[in-house]
Amino acid sequence: MTDVEHMKWWGWGVEGVGFHHEDKPAFAPFVLQAVGLDLATAQKAEQPDFDALTLAASAARPAFVAALAGIVGEDHVATDPLERVVHSYGKSLRDLVRIRSNAIARAVDVVVYPADEAEVQKVVDAAVAEDAVIIPFGGGSNIAGSLEPRADETRTVLSLDLGRLDEVLSIDAESGLARIQAGALGPHLEAQLNAQGWTIGHFPDSFTHSTIGGWAATRSSGMQSDKYGDIAQIVRGLRVVRPSRDGADGVLVIPAIPSASTGPSVRDMIVGSEGRLGVITEVTAQVHRVAEERTIQAYFFPNWSAGLAAMQAISESDATPIITRVSDARETGFSLATSKQRHGFDAFLAEKALPGIMRSKGWNLDDICLSFIGFEGGAAHVKRQKKLVGAIVKQHGGMGVGTGPGVLYDQKKFDTPYLRDFLLDRGAAGDVSETAAPWSKLAQVYDATIAAANGAYAELGIKGWIMCHLSHSYHSGACLYFTFAFVFGDEPLREYDLVKSAIQQAFVDNGATISHHHGVGVEHSPWLEQDISREGVAVLRGLFASADPGENFNPGKILPGVEVRVEG
Amino acid sequence: MTDVEHMKWWGWGVEGVGFHHEDKPAFAPFVLQAVGLDLATAQKAEQPDFDALTLAASAARPAFVAALAGIVGEDHVATDPLERVVHSYGKSLRDLVRIRSNAIARAVDVVVYPADEAEVQKVVDAAVAEDAVIIPFGGGSNIAGSLEPRADETRTVLSLDLGRLDEVLSIDAESGLARIQAGALGPHLEAQLNAQGWTIGHFPDSFTHSTIGGWAATRSSGMQSDKYGDIAQIVRGLRVVRPSRDGADGVLVIPAIPSASTGPSVRDMIVGSEGRLGVITEVTAQVHRVAEERTIQAYFFPNWSAGLAAMQAISESDATPIITRVSDARETGFSLATSKQRHGFDAFLAEKALPGIMRSKGWNLDDICLSFIGFEGGAAHVKRQKKLVGAIVKQHGGMGVGTGPGVLYDQKKFDTPYLRDFLLDRGAAGDVSETAAPWSKLAQVYDATIAAANGAYAELGIKGWIMCHLSHSYHSGACLYFTFAFVFGDEPLREYDLVKSAIQQAFVDNGATISHHHGVGVEHSPWLEQDISREGVAVLRGLFASADPGENFNPGKILPGVEVRVEG
Repeated sequence: MTDVEHMKWWGWGVEGVGFHHEDKPAFAPFVLQAVGLDLATAQKAEQPDFDALTLAASAARPAFVAALAGIVGEDHVATDPLERVVHSYGKSLRDLVRIRSNAIARAVDVVVYPADEAEVQKVVDAAVAEDAVIIPFGGGSNIAGSLEPRADETRTVLSLDLGRLDEVLSIDAESGLARIQAGALGPHLEAQLNAQGWTIGHFPDSFTHSTIGGWAATRSSGMQSDKYGDIAQIVRGLRVVRPSRDGADGVLVIPAIPSASTGPSVRDMIVGSEGRLGVITEVTAQVHRVAEERTIQAYFFPNWSAGLAAMQAISESDATPIITRVSDARETGFSLATSKQRHGFDAFLAEKALPGIMRSKGWNLDDICLSFIGFEGGAAHVKRQKKLVGAIVKQHGGMGVGTGPGVLYDQKKFDTPYLRDFLLDRGAAGDVSETAAPWSKLAQVYDATIAAANGAYAELGIKGWIMCHLSHSYHSGACLYFTFAFVFGDEPLREYDLVKSAIQQAFVDNGATISHHHGVGVEHSPWLEQDISREGVAVLRGLFASADPGENFNPGKILPGVEVRVEG
Repeated sequence: MTDVEHMKWWGWGVEGVGFHHEDKPAFAPFVLQAVGLDLATAQKAEQPDFDALTLAASAARPAFVAALAGIVGEDHVATDPLERVVHSYGKSLRDLVRIRSNAIARAVDVVVYPADEAEVQKVVDAAVAEDAVIIPFGGGSNIAGSLEPRADETRTVLSLDLGRLDEVLSIDAESGLARIQAGALGPHLEAQLNAQGWTIGHFPDSFTHSTIGGWAATRSSGMQSDKYGDIAQIVRGLRVVRPSRDGADGVLVIPAIPSASTGPSVRDMIVGSEGRLGVITEVTAQVHRVAEERTIQAYFFPNWSAGLAAMQAISESDATPIITRVSDARETGFSLATSKQRHGFDAFLAEKALPGIMRSKGWNLDDICLSFIGFEGGAAHVKRQKKLVGAIVKQHGGMGVGTGPGVLYDQKKFDTPYLRDFLLDRGAAGDVSETAAPWSKLAQVYDATIAAANGAYAELGIKGWIMCHLSHSYHSGACLYFTFAFVFGDEPLREYDLVKSAIQQAFVDNGATISHHHGVGVEHSPWLEQDISREGVAVLRGLFASADPGENFNPGKILPGVEVRVEG
């Protein structure tokens, strides 16, 4: 069979890797205090039994499957239950709850692994001729419901896995541009670039299990976007397979031009299209020389509003950091609680000396906010950036604490999804919602969102948790990234919906967007009209209807009005 | 009548302002050498006679005109010949040649000046009910044919002039965002911003006679885009009037979010839409505090390839200039020829000392290339930027010559269009074509474009001129801006088409785009498919067809296949 690897079918990441807290003494007390979950007594769920899943038979006609095998080879078509299940959901909390509770409303019928763009074209043409539905699949890390078939889909559903298109094809060193196949996973493409001294600079939390095609299709953003830009800036050229017509292939080609005034930007229609306009097979991406120096500095602020104001001031200054991030007091508490046991002088510094200094400044230790700011470039540049930022931090009452926490941040940055599975194993939800808004609205968005989540928890009569950090600074605003958690009652998805919906509604009610970098899918589409207006949605609807009149390309995603939710 | 002012009907700018060369002794010899035009003997054309123009009667039904007057008031609807002519063309060379030769194939029928968005909505609804064509009009500076009605248009054509919507409505100082009405001209909106310490940082060559709505509609770029971004980055929020439906208004609202993953970017569909998706009434734009310091430094390079390489190196470095620009040897010669007479020590420096230094370095004075690089920010920042760039210039064999030429550049930057009219008055074409490409392709695009223009001149058997500068640097490439000139023979527009087409074809044949910042209109649309591919055009065609099924919004623009060219 095909050698494309996938995450485990019931959770994040690969088997054998998981979150544990044996070396983090503050973690269990923190969880008990935050959501009332006692890790000492909590029952850990058994790994779900794949054979217990209820899965309808594949609706793919044998002749269609045979035709696909004729294109990609027998080894690269699959209709077996495991392949179908792995490709039917992403890794949202809703996905994991459903899959653990045997709630698969509509699995994909057949999975295809084409070897190259020519095979993608043939698969697309065969699927359209069959009037099948095509859902492109990258790393499977999506958390917006972008990968699942519509629950009521009566046609054959084909998951088109790009996993075999995973090479960096060429690097244009003079232009800082790399042609990269859409199915290349973050670590694989970054290793290929690093080997020649380059980096893509795009590091979303999902990096280890997401692909460049997926990043483009969901209009994603990575944690160093302050320097490298969002994926919409990083993606310059695109190749997208659409149905052949008039005897010619259907490859849409956007050349890698640095900037153009060629009408409405088709590039910016493909970026964020979640498979609805065709199958992205190749991206020409901006790449950068690996920087001479890189440092993540940590700072503390006395409170959230001081931290927000400092980030805004940095964005307006001459400084050009690669990362700006500040956690609210609750997330700061969480970070400290997930730190490993310290010993000797380290312990003294972190647990005695530092709090002492803060108290002597009159800070309330319950309000302190941890911030990470990253710098890259030549030594002189980094030095000057640190100085510029250091002065702004000081102006806002903050203090620098060196690189220690930043090193930890760099090491832990891709681990958060494992923690979600850890909680889920113990009957608790842990999930995220992120947004962006102008600087002037961030405090209001923050307050309203915290209040909305707490209102939902009160309605449920439970003790819930919500924390936040600001990241991804822009000239006119920034992203707020919320993480929330609570112990499930009897109806996990109803409870989850109540909390998640309250948060999303707070975003749009306060002038923030429904998603800064996770995409729309079906998870966020109910709020799209409140975000980009009725006419904005109408324009999108027309675009999809005209580009895909047969609704063959991932129908039901992005646009509101098509709900595929299944209660688990 | 309405007090919205327009440029003169037969040329650029306002009456009484024009290019003259009495104080530029090197100019006449330069023109003689470049295109064989002897300014000493050249006949200056008389100002064309408006009353001699042939203009079909307005096709607007009196009842429709009355209905429009009922919306905007009698004083704000016009069907008189001058208003109709002013609104029927932009200011491309083709436009000016045609208007001077009494070639108006299809004038607009009625001009409307709504006072606010509510009136725009009513005008749009009335026009759609009448099955009229709506062409939004800002400053009228377009040079891509985006403003003219289709020659074969049988319906009533309405020019919707946004000139009365010209206010900066509010400034969000915390976010660096300003709500600006679409019809605000560059100087007017910049003055309103400057009064409160802000700048928009968008300065296209057309600045004095173009509007923010027009900048957005044509996906424009200003000369300080290295710092402030193209208009696609500057525009954050948008309000766009589309037809009312289901009893609700048709205002499409894109909120001013710094970055979002809400599907295909509707913002980036409106930006560049040239009126085809609706009427832009308001832009929420990024604005910046006026910088503490600003300086434009001049440098010389021994030749074009050294200049190109230096600009690429700067784009890859830690430096963040606001402008990077280098002229080829021909444009450098042109710049020197349009300098005012120098006296005393100035003359010695420029005409004796500087050339002496260059010769002593072994430079060929026919190859030297003049470069401007601009810096803004705090004093320490500007100093460091100059140092970083200075080192790169030196590495590439260049030399700094201080701020003198930069001051002149700043003063003269909006004057070029007047020179075109000066030439046109004397029977010569002067026009521009600009493009963008990755750094690795710029030398090839440059060589091929020069060769293509010279090939066209050879075919015409004339002495023609073409010169170029690089401007607008990005991480992965830059814009090349070509200016060409030749003396007309018997068939001006046939000759112009031959040269202009050769240049555009050279762009797409060598991996460059058909326009970096002038838009598509009808002037560049024949090459669109060669630029963004057949499928890219198909997606655009579907977008327009679905968003405007009645073809009421500026039909015929951007998409290839609709030619409205009229020979003059």
